[in-house]
Amino acid sequence: MNFIRKRMGSLEKLFNPSSVAVVGVSEDPTKLGSVLFSNIIDSGFKGKVYPVNPKHEKLFGVKAYKSVSAIKGKIDLVAIAVPAKFVIDVMKDAGRKRVRAAIVITAGFKEVGDDGIELEKQLLETAKRYKIRLLGPNCLGMINPMTDLNASFAASTPEKGKIGFLSQSGAFCTAILDMAVEKNLGFSYFVSLGNKADIDELDLLDMWYKDENVKVIGAYLEEISKGKDMVDLVRSNDNRKPLIMFKPGKSLSAMKAISSHTGSMAGSTETFQAAIKQNGIIESNEVNEMFYTMMGFAWSPLPKGPRVAVVTNAGGPGIIATDEIAEHGLEMAEISAKSKRAMRNFLPPTASVENPIDVIGDALAQRYRAPIDVLMQDENVDSILVILTPQLVTQIEETAKLIISSAKLYEKPIYAVFLGGKYAKTGLQRLYDNKIPAFLYIQDAVKVIEKMHTYQAYCKKAIAMDDKKKDALVKNRGKGKYQKELQKLVKNKVLNPSESLVQKMAEEVGIDLPEQIISNDLKEILHFAEDRYPVVIKATTESIAHKTDVKALYLNIKDEQELISNFEKLQATIAKVSKTKTAEILVQEQIEADESLLIGANRDGGADVYEDGSKGFGHLIVIGKGGIYTEVYKDFQTTLVPSTRTEFENALYSTKVSKILRGARGMEKLAVNKVLDALEAVQKLVLLYPEIESLDINPIMINKKRAVAVDIKIFLK
Amino acid sequence: MNFIRKRMGSLEKLFNPSSVAVVGVSEDPTKLGSVLFSNIIDSGFKGKVYPVNPKHEKLFGVKAYKSVSAIKGKIDLVAIAVPAKFVIDVMKDAGRKRVRAAIVITAGFKEVGDDGIELEKQLLETAKRYKIRLLGPNCLGMINPMTDLNASFAASTPEKGKIGFLSQSGAFCTAILDMAVEKNLGFSYFVSLGNKADIDELDLLDMWYKDENVKVIGAYLEEISKGKDMVDLVRSNDNRKPLIMFKPGKSLSAMKAISSHTGSMAGSTETFQAAIKQNGIIESNEVNEMFYTMMGFAWSPLPKGPRVAVVTNAGGPGIIATDEIAEHGLEMAEISAKSKRAMRNFLPPTASVENPIDVIGDALAQRYRAPIDVLMQDENVDSILVILTPQLVTQIEETAKLIISSAKLYEKPIYAVFLGGKYAKTGLQRLYDNKIPAFLYIQDAVKVIEKMHTYQAYCKKAIAMDDKKKDALVKNRGKGKYQKELQKLVKNKVLNPSESLVQKMAEEVGIDLPEQIISNDLKEILHFAEDRYPVVIKATTESIAHKTDVKALYLNIKDEQELISNFEKLQATIAKVSKTKTAEILVQEQIEADESLLIGANRDGGADVYEDGSKGFGHLIVIGKGGIYTEVYKDFQTTLVPSTRTEFENALYSTKVSKILRGARGMEKLAVNKVLDALEAVQKLVLLYPEIESLDINPIMINKKRAVAVDIKIFLK
Repeated sequence: MNFIRKRMGSLEKLFNPSSVAVVGVSEDPTKLGSVLFSNIIDSGFKGKVYPVNPKHEKLFGVKAYKSVSAIKGKIDLVAIAVPAKFVIDVMKDAGRKRVRAAIVITAGFKEVGDDGIELEKQLLETAKRYKIRLLGPNCLGMINPMTDLNASFAASTPEKGKIGFLSQSGAFCTAILDMAVEKNLGFSYFVSLGNKADIDELDLLDMWYKDENVKVIGAYLEEISKGKDMVDLVRSNDNRKPLIMFKPGKSLSAMKAISSHTGSMAGSTETFQAAIKQNGIIESNEVNEMFYTMMGFAWSPLPKGPRVAVVTNAGGPGIIATDEIAEHGLEMAEISAKSKRAMRNFLPPTASVENPIDVIGDALAQRYRAPIDVLMQDENVDSILVILTPQLVTQIEETAKLIISSAKLYEKPIYAVFLGGKYAKTGLQRLYDNKIPAFLYIQDAVKVIEKMHTYQAYCKKAIAMDDKKKDALVKNRGKGKYQKELQKLVKNKVLNPSESLVQKMAEEVGIDLPEQIISNDLKEILHFAEDRYPVVIKATTESIAHKTDVKALYLNIKDEQELISNFEKLQATIAKVSKTKTAEILVQEQIEADESLLIGANRDGGADVYEDGSKGFGHLIVIGKGGIYTEVYKDFQTTLVPSTRTEFENALYSTKVSKILRGARGMEKLAVNKVLDALEAVQKLVLLYPEIESLDINPIMINKKRAVAVDIKIFLK
Repeated sequence: MNFIRKRMGSLEKLFNPSSVAVVGVSEDPTKLGSVLFSNIIDSGFKGKVYPVNPKHEKLFGVKAYKSVSAIKGKIDLVAIAVPAKFVIDVMKDAGRKRVRAAIVITAGFKEVGDDGIELEKQLLETAKRYKIRLLGPNCLGMINPMTDLNASFAASTPEKGKIGFLSQSGAFCTAILDMAVEKNLGFSYFVSLGNKADIDELDLLDMWYKDENVKVIGAYLEEISKGKDMVDLVRSNDNRKPLIMFKPGKSLSAMKAISSHTGSMAGSTETFQAAIKQNGIIESNEVNEMFYTMMGFAWSPLPKGPRVAVVTNAGGPGIIATDEIAEHGLEMAEISAKSKRAMRNFLPPTASVENPIDVIGDALAQRYRAPIDVLMQDENVDSILVILTPQLVTQIEETAKLIISSAKLYEKPIYAVFLGGKYAKTGLQRLYDNKIPAFLYIQDAVKVIEKMHTYQAYCKKAIAMDDKKKDALVKNRGKGKYQKELQKLVKNKVLNPSESLVQKMAEEVGIDLPEQIISNDLKEILHFAEDRYPVVIKATTESIAHKTDVKALYLNIKDEQELISNFEKLQATIAKVSKTKTAEILVQEQIEADESLLIGANRDGGADVYEDGSKGFGHLIVIGKGGIYTEVYKDFQTTLVPSTRTEFENALYSTKVSKILRGARGMEKLAVNKVLDALEAVQKLVLLYPEIESLDINPIMINKKRAVAVDIKIFLK
């Protein structure tokens, strides 16, 4: 299931043009077109740049052109900043000139509603007709620091670096850029996607995964329409470039806001979370967190494990760091005895060589050297966090220099926190100048270490995707035995298949069901129950439809005598309610449950999600605590279809209730393997029948031998 | 139960001296004593300042003195920065001169171990003998901006303001001070507590609660030794000054670090959390969070409710804010139709008047005016969050000015986030200069709004403390019927009272227990069981001690016949195991439980914690999910003893499992009132018997009528 980009052409001319025409430059230097033109010139772009404006002969001291086609030389890229209603004409003109890439800065398309949607459709059609790759509309433009091209109206150009950054929000671009310029974070690409009419995150990811100038990818996305494609693309990323993603819209109110802001639905949070977790995507939820995470991955090697050593010149911040490290799933490194001795030789007696290592408030820069050198060589330490609080004698810049030289000597990540404001800044700036991840706040640093550790652990675990098996699963998609019956129901808008059809489908994929018969013959019922006591009897749904106030269920029937008496009572009840003398009764083995779970499946996107290029993420499988505590503890985990058994196992073991399955409080282990079988069976079911919109098994009863689905509900769409 | 400070004198001479002697000034201007001396001079202190050093006639151009007693005039405050071994002599000299306050900067006391502990003890004794109030040792000193006195070796003096700030960590002081100077946050007091040999947080809280120059209190504390006193003091705070507290040491590793750093135990995190939550103390867990929280409370009125309106010039950050608001327990305000119409009149058609209100990227400063004015007057809005992203035309400083003027016109809190780095700063600085809470990051702002809202909600709810009732409870402390028996056990180091003693104690306070008899007479047993089926029978602990592998419990016995047969089986088992023919058997009514909870009690501090000035917080009551899910979901809440019934109710309703008690999924309500009775009974028990170190009822079985303690364990100390 390799990801194949069915696109019309490469992005070479967009990012690496030899000539650019800017349409919409005017005499007013504050207008978008003029800013764009100036930025291209000022950023030091080596190619040719032509201003286009029919009303002027000269602009900014150079010859201006009436149209793109009026320019004599070849034009690779056209940047358009004219009012929306003129954009398509400019595109056509550029198309006739065989321009291959366009940036449309202009707003007033999809985001303004119906008229805009229509205009954007026409814009895309024009682009396709003329084979022009289109960035935008309604975007800030893009910056390629490697070729010194700032084709955007952003106020600054970042340094050259190894980060590919894309954003659906121009404002987010601006905020990151502002921080990047201040802290010297460099980029290989910096792209504002705007409305994503043509070029979207998939194009850029595909390109950046292959581009050796990109080491780290950052993405701010309000909407991921082709979720399944994105997951496939990320999985195909063999050289494992970290992808840091910020996708707002977790809360209901934010989803509403997104839909009014971009005119598109945000998609389910759960599905996105599952996709993130399962595929090692690094999530970020704040502007500064996103920025610092990119900084960490770009500037520092990955820590080899969770063990952090803290070196501080003050006890308090050391303790705060210790708390943060514990809270973020990292560990305080156990310093080796050898390292402690080595440090002890260089530190005053009042210093502490236990982690957090306290070099004491009167430490000059040199006092940080021994601990850092020693910890760099201690195999019990995976990363070093150096904290500096400006005290009376503290040498802020000198300490920064010392950290810089250590970072260059060793291959172990080192992070710095310089607390405070005014004084700390001089040191921080020196660290940024030398590409050392450095922070004003302890929490910011620890969050970055956590993310880098989590990513490293994900890469190390390297969950075998076993794509062949998955392909096999997906190949049978839509080939269930009861496909026709299901399709008939969908056609007739019957969205709940009958109990018996659900049972047949469940049996087809091997879901363990309680043994049962439906009968009105007492003799037959007694025969069935013979070696299955205790049993349960109940009225079938049909016989007492909508009567919730009658006793229609008898549990824990231990012997023949009890069965006969309850059978008679139930018959009488049914007779009274439904006026049939000998109604059918369901007899079922009673499942003794040590624990009750729920398994669910929900589809995100259409039934065609398994086709390339289709919308949504496909089915999401949910596993967690079932029964009366379902809503109380909301203890669920999720994985995307298709998942391997290992991925199901990871999800199951991430639930809290799995402690019970593994034998908590001295109890016996329950049938974990049967739960995994059930998860695989449910996955098979939703793949065989993509018509299933959602499925709900609650409870699935777990004991030491079986995982039995007592109640399965299926909804079609 | 009023808090009475039994201290030896006021802090007047410390904070408001008319003359200060600095002992340990030298020719080297970088030494602590010299810095301290210079700081006092440079901060503009109006009183007299004398340098003391026996080796010099003149220092920094003024006459130096051989000793404090050699100074002719009256000395109110002495600041000491000589080596540790000389400190006590200086104190004695100052004492003879009738100095009333001392700041000991010098380190090398309790924090360095045994010798230091002894030295600190002597220091305190000297202070007491001469009636000198002592700040430190091992501290940074203190700053009183109101009297222009910087008696510290901190590098800067903050502005005058309304915040009283104290810190046990000098480094934390420095970090906060550095931020404060940069962002113009003002203080009325700024105190580094150091080792707290004499003056501690209780002295300062007591003083600041009464001082009208203090509006907000901030405290960084690594250790709260007199927890009960602190709680009483906070409760006595009628004028409700917000207390923002940062107490690190939540993780085990951090507790270890604290104990090696301050030589004292951190105390239980749970107890501290309960104290915080119950008494409206505002918690902070990061340096910047602490700083911003103080800023919010000092500069802004409290929001009247949770409803936040967001005004932004960019969609993305608006959505991010919406997520953060939902995540932090706040609400997106529903803008009134009238407000929407009013805003619509002033905004371009592409702007959004739904919350988040988007004034669009091309907004100049003036475009923010209408929404802010309208929202200030909209009764559906409790606070306003203005977000600015620097875009091409954005007027950063002008927008800041506009926010400033609106904040002055209305009594509704307004918070600003200026995203980015380099450009945003000019606007932020202007906001700080005018005391508008302003932030670089959205999350920082939302956290502050959350804390201010939570505090306001706490004040509004104004849980009646009903102190008389509490006094009554505490008055009976140590007056249980079985006190003597318990004390005898403690004396003999028997730490588990027998089942029968526990039962009698439980009955004394009215804990509902299952009815039961212990007997070896079948007839008697049958008589007891007659109208109580189903029943349970089990071997008493004594009869099968340490035999876990025999069947000693029969559940769900439905009738006489079953009881007889199980009684015989059990008798036989006991006979085999313990070689007694007719062992005693416990027969108990079987409690049908719809839910099982746990109630626990733990004591933090000694049994004398209810005496004034004693250590620790006293007993902590725990309520939560019991049974097999106790450890799985860790669904507990806690309250400190003494608690009112309302406080117990709040704690109970804060557990997740309380959803079941209140009748989740269409089920009937359970006996919540009986759970509250049980909590009050347990509280009565631990007050009657302060010897109880911990108590554990797991499970307490809840059905529609009762809350029955099936298993009570008590440990003494």
